[in-house]
Amino acid sequence: MRQEKLNEINSYIEELKTKRQELLDTNSRFLKTKRYRSYLNDGRTVVREKLIKGNGPGNASIVLPVTSDNQVILTVQPRIFTKSTIGIALPAGYVEKGETYIDGARRELEEETGYQSNNLIEVCGFYQDEGCSEAFNKGFLALDCKKISNQKLDKDEYIRYFKCSIDELYELLDMNLILDGGSQLTIERAKKYIKKG
Amino acid sequence: MRQEKLNEINSYIEELKTKRQELLDTNSRFLKTKRYRSYLNDGRTVVREKLIKGNGPGNASIVLPVTSDNQVILTVQPRIFTKSTIGIALPAGYVEKGETYIDGARRELEEETGYQSNNLIEVCGFYQDEGCSEAFNKGFLALDCKKISNQKLDKDEYIRYFKCSIDELYELLDMNLILDGGSQLTIERAKKYIKKG
Repeated sequence: MRQEKLNEINSYIEELKTKRQELLDTNSRFLKTKRYRSYLNDGRTVVREKLIKGNGPGNASIVLPVTSDNQVILTVQPRIFTKSTIGIALPAGYVEKGETYIDGARRELEEETGYQSNNLIEVCGFYQDEGCSEAFNKGFLALDCKKISNQKLDKDEYIRYFKCSIDELYELLDMNLILDGGSQLTIERAKKYIKKG
Repeated sequence: MRQEKLNEINSYIEELKTKRQELLDTNSRFLKTKRYRSYLNDGRTVVREKLIKGNGPGNASIVLPVTSDNQVILTVQPRIFTKSTIGIALPAGYVEKGETYIDGARRELEEETGYQSNNLIEVCGFYQDEGCSEAFNKGFLALDCKKISNQKLDKDEYIRYFKCSIDELYELLDMNLILDGGSQLTIERAKKYIKKG
């Protein structure tokens, strides 16, 4: 891992980590929950609770972006409930109503990094928490990414991004710096499509 | 994939799938949510919502059990919010207060299948949904599993299990029958430790 790359990553971590946290409310606006009873085929019943995100299923697309000079792009953002209070992860986000997963992947990549790809390969699909959510996520490898614009972030979204080599991506995984499950699975499944180095 | 194995799996799916579902309540008892504000190092603030499961962080252990005759063990249970309404997945469950991840992995394996292993290898660690939860999961490969008891299920837990070969496990993945993200990642990371066939 190049020292200047580690310095760059550390500068984003320093900038975005949580200094102090306060509880605002024991109710939430974006996260909602509901209780359901299911009648099973064999006559038994189960009661289960469901997490709802912003009135939708919470489906998300995750993107491993690779540029034409074989660099990958990763994001750093506040993840205030994790131990480090920041997360290094692949670009990702919720699929919007009327969008396909691949549309969502392209849009999130462009919003979070300003990069665009017209060469996306679906590499995985999984339920994020199948016991209490219908959220189904898909991971994509985005090849030949090109910088076409600046980031387009929502208010209250603070995302930094950086480029590194494929080998450095694997080093960051080995250093336990990429701890998001969806990012880990997408990278694992994309491996067979990307050249090393 | 052996036809009799597919028949066995299908019989569990038939038994456990949802015939009819009803909304009981727009409030929940197990899932709770809270809103927090974080003061970042650079002076900005973000508001984020957190999912809490049963008053704990919701940390879980996931186990890929392999018997001494090289069979793996998978569970089938109602997953009422998924498309198929059932889930085929690795044995898994929440880590209890005072337990380590490896304790939780052993206990869940025994409760859900009646099998025991004293040879567990940690193969992955990941946040399940780092944007809105502190839940951190660990995946284990459990070797030399031996049947030592019957299942010990909670009331309201209906879990079937079956054994199949490693090759059949990979076939089930290819058939999109194992859609739980944590199971997929644990299997992916355990691959280098298990022999095929």
